[in-house]
Amino acid sequence: MANYKLIVEYDGTNYHGFQVQPKISTIQGEIESVLTKLAQSDTRVTGAGRTDAGVHALNQVINFHSNLTVPVDKLKLAFNSLLPKDIRVKQATQVDQQFHARFDAIEKSYFYRIEQGDNASAFSRNYCWWIRNSLAWDKMIIASEKIIGKHDFAGFTASGSDVHCTIRTLKDVQIKRQENGVELRFTADGFLYHMVRNLVGTLVEVGLSKREPDSIVEILDSKDRGRAGVTAPAQGLFLESIRYT
Amino acid sequence: MANYKLIVEYDGTNYHGFQVQPKISTIQGEIESVLTKLAQSDTRVTGAGRTDAGVHALNQVINFHSNLTVPVDKLKLAFNSLLPKDIRVKQATQVDQQFHARFDAIEKSYFYRIEQGDNASAFSRNYCWWIRNSLAWDKMIIASEKIIGKHDFAGFTASGSDVHCTIRTLKDVQIKRQENGVELRFTADGFLYHMVRNLVGTLVEVGLSKREPDSIVEILDSKDRGRAGVTAPAQGLFLESIRYT
Repeated sequence: MANYKLIVEYDGTNYHGFQVQPKISTIQGEIESVLTKLAQSDTRVTGAGRTDAGVHALNQVINFHSNLTVPVDKLKLAFNSLLPKDIRVKQATQVDQQFHARFDAIEKSYFYRIEQGDNASAFSRNYCWWIRNSLAWDKMIIASEKIIGKHDFAGFTASGSDVHCTIRTLKDVQIKRQENGVELRFTADGFLYHMVRNLVGTLVEVGLSKREPDSIVEILDSKDRGRAGVTAPAQGLFLESIRYT
Repeated sequence: MANYKLIVEYDGTNYHGFQVQPKISTIQGEIESVLTKLAQSDTRVTGAGRTDAGVHALNQVINFHSNLTVPVDKLKLAFNSLLPKDIRVKQATQVDQQFHARFDAIEKSYFYRIEQGDNASAFSRNYCWWIRNSLAWDKMIIASEKIIGKHDFAGFTASGSDVHCTIRTLKDVQIKRQENGVELRFTADGFLYHMVRNLVGTLVEVGLSKREPDSIVEILDSKDRGRAGVTAPAQGLFLESIRYT
C-alpha cells in the first residue's frame, strides 16, 4: 500500500475537533468518510495535531496508507469534490512508506487572534477572542520572552491529559499588534493539551494587569495548572504549520 | 415618539436576506424581535438597503420610531446583548423626526470579493466568489469605466423587480487587485435589484475573455437583461456604506 500525505485547511467552527468520535461530526471523521469512498474500504488517517472543537487549521498534515486507484495528481480534486466546503485539501502527495504525520513532526506553529475594540465584529466571532479592555502589549511581550526555551510546561496543560513527559521547547513567541487587535504566534517542538490556550489566557491576564509578567515564571516553576490564567477560547486558535525533517 | 438610527453590521450567511418574512430568519426580523422586547410593543424598522440572502453588511442603516425607556447611550449594548452574534449594532443615536433610512440616502457603496487560485479557502467560502481561472484585470477595468455615469441600468436588473425608474448614476467603480483575488467597489445614488451582482457577473465574463469590454455598453443600450452576464453569487457582496446629506 502507498503512503499518502495531505495538507489540509479547515474552519473548525462546525466540528467537534479533529479526532474521530462516534456519531459526532469531526474533521478526521469527514476525511475518513471521503477516503473510505475513494478507497472503497475503511481507511484510517493520522493527523499531526489533534485540534480541539472550534480550533482552525491552515496547514494540518495527515497521512494514510491505501491502495487508491485515483492517480495522486487527481487526489486533491477528488477529496475537495466530496468534502464539506469548510475542509479543503491544499496538497496531496505520495510519500515514503515510513512517513508518519504525528511522530515525524519536529516543529509546530500556532497563532491566536485577539480582537480589541468597542464592538465584537459580526464576521470574526468564530475566529478570534474579543476583548473590550485594552491590553498592555509591552507587558505581554516581556512575559512571553520569559517562557521561551526548554521548560516543564505542566502548569500550562489541562488536567487529565495523558502525556507522560510535559517538557517542551518553546522556540519562539511573537506578539504582533494588528489594526484592531493582536496576533500571538507560538512555535515549539510540540505542544501539550490546551498549552497554547493556557499561555494565551495567562498572557492576556498580564496584558489586563491582573497579574505581573513575572508570574508566568512562577507558574512554570510550580507546575501547578491552578496558578495559570484562564484557558483562552478555542475559536481564536489556528494551527498554522508543521515542520518535518 | 423619538426617532432612532442604528448602524448595523451583519454576516448574512445564515439569513434569508434583510427584509422581514413570516416564519423565516431575516436580519430585519431579528432586529424587530429584539426591539419589540426593548420597547415592549411591536415596532417595525426601516432599512436603507434590502440585502439578499447571503449578502453581508458592514454599515447598514436602520431607523425606527419608539418610546424606548432605555437611554440612547445604553441602546447599542442593549441590542447587542439580545441579538445573535452575527448581527451587531455599531452605533445607536437619536435623530431628527424626519430622518428616513431609505428615502434620505443619497449614496450607497457596495464591494464584491472574488478569490482566485487553485483552492477555494475553507475560511472565505461564505465571503467571496471563488474563480479558479485567472481574470484579465485590465479588460475588467476598461469595461468598468464604460459604465460609470448616469444610465438606464434596466439591462442589469433582475426581471420582476418592481421599480418604475431604472435610471441610476453609477458614480464610481474601483477594481483593486488583492493578494489572492480582486475587490470590486461600486458607488451610486442607488442600486436596482441584483444590479451589483449582475455588473460583477458581466465584468467577470469580460475578465475571462468570454465577452468584450464594449459589450457592457451594448447591454446598457439594449436594456435587455438577457444580454448581461451571470448574476454573481450573493456571498461575495457587502453593503459597505450609506451616505446622507
